[in-house]
Amino acid sequence: MASFPLSAKEEIVERFLDAAVRGDLPQLRMLLTHTPSLINQTGYSGWTALMLAARNGHYNVVEALLSHGCDKLPVNSSSQTAYDIAKFWGHSHISNLLAQTDDRCSGVLPELYFCRETLDRQSDKRTDKAWLEAQQSDPNTVYLLFSNINPMVSRCEEDKSSEVLNKLCRFRYDGVKDLFQKPTTKLIFLGVEKMNSSSSCSQVQEGSWEPPAWFAIGTDEDATELLKRCRGKNCFFTTFSPKIDLLTFSEEEAGIVAHARSVLVWHDRYSFCSTCGSGTSLEEGGHKRRCLNSECRSLKGVHNTCYPRVDPVVIMLVVHPDRNQCLLGRKKSFPVGMFSCLAGFIEPGEAIEDAVRREVEEESGVKVGLVRYICSQPWPMPSNLMIGCLAIATSTNIKVDQNEIEEARWFTRQQIAESLHRGANPALMLPPSQTIAHQLIRYWICKNANL
Amino acid sequence: MASFPLSAKEEIVERFLDAAVRGDLPQLRMLLTHTPSLINQTGYSGWTALMLAARNGHYNVVEALLSHGCDKLPVNSSSQTAYDIAKFWGHSHISNLLAQTDDRCSGVLPELYFCRETLDRQSDKRTDKAWLEAQQSDPNTVYLLFSNINPMVSRCEEDKSSEVLNKLCRFRYDGVKDLFQKPTTKLIFLGVEKMNSSSSCSQVQEGSWEPPAWFAIGTDEDATELLKRCRGKNCFFTTFSPKIDLLTFSEEEAGIVAHARSVLVWHDRYSFCSTCGSGTSLEEGGHKRRCLNSECRSLKGVHNTCYPRVDPVVIMLVVHPDRNQCLLGRKKSFPVGMFSCLAGFIEPGEAIEDAVRREVEEESGVKVGLVRYICSQPWPMPSNLMIGCLAIATSTNIKVDQNEIEEARWFTRQQIAESLHRGANPALMLPPSQTIAHQLIRYWICKNANL
Repeated sequence: MASFPLSAKEEIVERFLDAAVRGDLPQLRMLLTHTPSLINQTGYSGWTALMLAARNGHYNVVEALLSHGCDKLPVNSSSQTAYDIAKFWGHSHISNLLAQTDDRCSGVLPELYFCRETLDRQSDKRTDKAWLEAQQSDPNTVYLLFSNINPMVSRCEEDKSSEVLNKLCRFRYDGVKDLFQKPTTKLIFLGVEKMNSSSSCSQVQEGSWEPPAWFAIGTDEDATELLKRCRGKNCFFTTFSPKIDLLTFSEEEAGIVAHARSVLVWHDRYSFCSTCGSGTSLEEGGHKRRCLNSECRSLKGVHNTCYPRVDPVVIMLVVHPDRNQCLLGRKKSFPVGMFSCLAGFIEPGEAIEDAVRREVEEESGVKVGLVRYICSQPWPMPSNLMIGCLAIATSTNIKVDQNEIEEARWFTRQQIAESLHRGANPALMLPPSQTIAHQLIRYWICKNANL
Repeated sequence: MASFPLSAKEEIVERFLDAAVRGDLPQLRMLLTHTPSLINQTGYSGWTALMLAARNGHYNVVEALLSHGCDKLPVNSSSQTAYDIAKFWGHSHISNLLAQTDDRCSGVLPELYFCRETLDRQSDKRTDKAWLEAQQSDPNTVYLLFSNINPMVSRCEEDKSSEVLNKLCRFRYDGVKDLFQKPTTKLIFLGVEKMNSSSSCSQVQEGSWEPPAWFAIGTDEDATELLKRCRGKNCFFTTFSPKIDLLTFSEEEAGIVAHARSVLVWHDRYSFCSTCGSGTSLEEGGHKRRCLNSECRSLKGVHNTCYPRVDPVVIMLVVHPDRNQCLLGRKKSFPVGMFSCLAGFIEPGEAIEDAVRREVEEESGVKVGLVRYICSQPWPMPSNLMIGCLAIATSTNIKVDQNEIEEARWFTRQQIAESLHRGANPALMLPPSQTIAHQLIRYWICKNANL
């Protein structure tokens, strides 16, 4: 029988995977040095080098692959991860290693979308009027323009391969100063560029040592008139409807949008003093509102009525007592086939862990014991703080509250791993990677052993 | 030389400690069975059985003592915990055991004050008007009376030894129904008693299977007139000034006060619609306010303006890079000698971990790397959610922001352990055990090795 000759690329992948099977660390390292992209390549039935090394008990190879940033998540055609394989074949030192590697470094828990802090908020400067005014007219200062609460963006048409579709339009003082005359204009001081941030954020002029300040401007001017200020084509105001629009910024810009939009929505909804009903004025670089009625109680002492609202929300992946299934639910408004983590607002007088237990039982009828905090994410729709947890169920019967969700169901680890790894699946679509729900689900798949 | 004879009690403590020294597990178990109170007894220089077993490398004795609920926190006269002793003498299997024991079970991380949920909130019942009205006039229903935001309590004069000083005054329908006529009265549905809650909460009548509902009433009636409703003497309205008054309820009642007071403060400060300045009315069992202006934007869709506010706060114990010191600060308003954890509000567009880093650097100038969530606590002054973290410093120079705190200082593990174990110390007073700050500090002392 004649076999078809392998291409040069196929041949090098074969050699790499073979080195993993044999535990030939020098050969594997040599190949990786020349061709770093080999690391996550798959061979027969979707097996990666990590899986093959795990199958054959080569601890040092697994260690080396992980230290080179190998992805632990992929599944083979039998929907097994490298961890599953090591565990099945009784290589417990390897399965422990695969479960224990530090979350952040191994990419199990990446930096979340909306979380990158490109600007230093410098909140002490908010009360320094002279400093703020000097920054406003500084030629290096960056302004972002919001039509009410929607940022002006330009569409990146060039790079079709990138997930980044929208880019914030940036203005200098001369391009926006006329807007400051209007009393309804809201000016929000967002911070100054961090000294160590990449120059992609804004170009710092030679010889200038002061990092530029950034402001957001919220205006009720006509949107078409505002767009004329922009020389570039393809500019528009996002409406965040569908909300997915908000998930197409770069990591750097997403963090800035999260801050600016949350504060502007607060101004939009909290223009009047809730204590006495009078009008209010902006203070402290747009981070405070003060009641204009000098008799108002809100002016005596410090009151939360004067500061932006942040609503804490618990979002949790509920794990079955058998540790091999998880509970996901869907709202009527979700796209067909999409399921996600349960979530709900924390109530007054409630701890995080108790809110998780209450919400899960209310929405699904399932009782929860252990709750473990994993990560958090600001979510500027309008101004939530998502507090992400894993929760271990102590009961399994589902009884859905139809007012909250349409359906809730237990999914096996295999179903989840397939959907995560293979992408869109008509039977089970998971929320996009920018969401904390996605990251909690991914975390559980990667860390299953350690709960 | 004649030695003084030991008392019977002293003798049994001696025998118990001697068994720990020798690793005589049968003897130790026999003594504990007869006299469980022996477990935390101290002998010469403040050494406990746990310390002696740790000193002499008796792993099985340490294990047995922990399983009997032995306290790991005490320090001997050299300010060493059992963990320190095991570590110093090279018994790493014992020091690991002492560090690893499950937090909740071992009492390292107890249930926090304000966190006990005696009532089931049954939030789905808030929209069921008929059910709520039936509960209101039910003779088993329990009412708590608040003069504006301050609960009516009776002072427990009998039991001087208890930390519980205040007890909520409870009313039946007949005692409060006249208040419902007044339009300014606020009625908050708090929930129904949990089926498994202790009968100390309220007496359930024989043959009655419906657990009683609880309501809080907020009224602006004259406080003296209100007090006449109470037959008991020693009744009054707490003013929470100083706030410490709020920390003298039983665990059961503290959780109820946290919920009721947070919601009542919200009503007190948010009577007017913040979107249009109109008046608002109460709905959903006192958990929603609706704008009375039918044109208001807040009536279209779901808006946070209509729901109680919960303000997330990060509170963190910053640990020195040497892992042997922690950073505490004091505000001008603190009692003399008191230091506590740093804390601050989470801002819009900010994750928990980033808020910890920003607040610590703003207040103290210290930079923070790793942040680890430990526990959370509702804090009804007025409606905060305290999110407690440990944070590992990456720099040590302190530069205090005088607007925020008066002083910040590194304290050694020994100084903290002494203050925790020996109580009031003029040089360093820690916040009371009801606070999450105290529990974070205690947690760090107990778990030092595992950060």
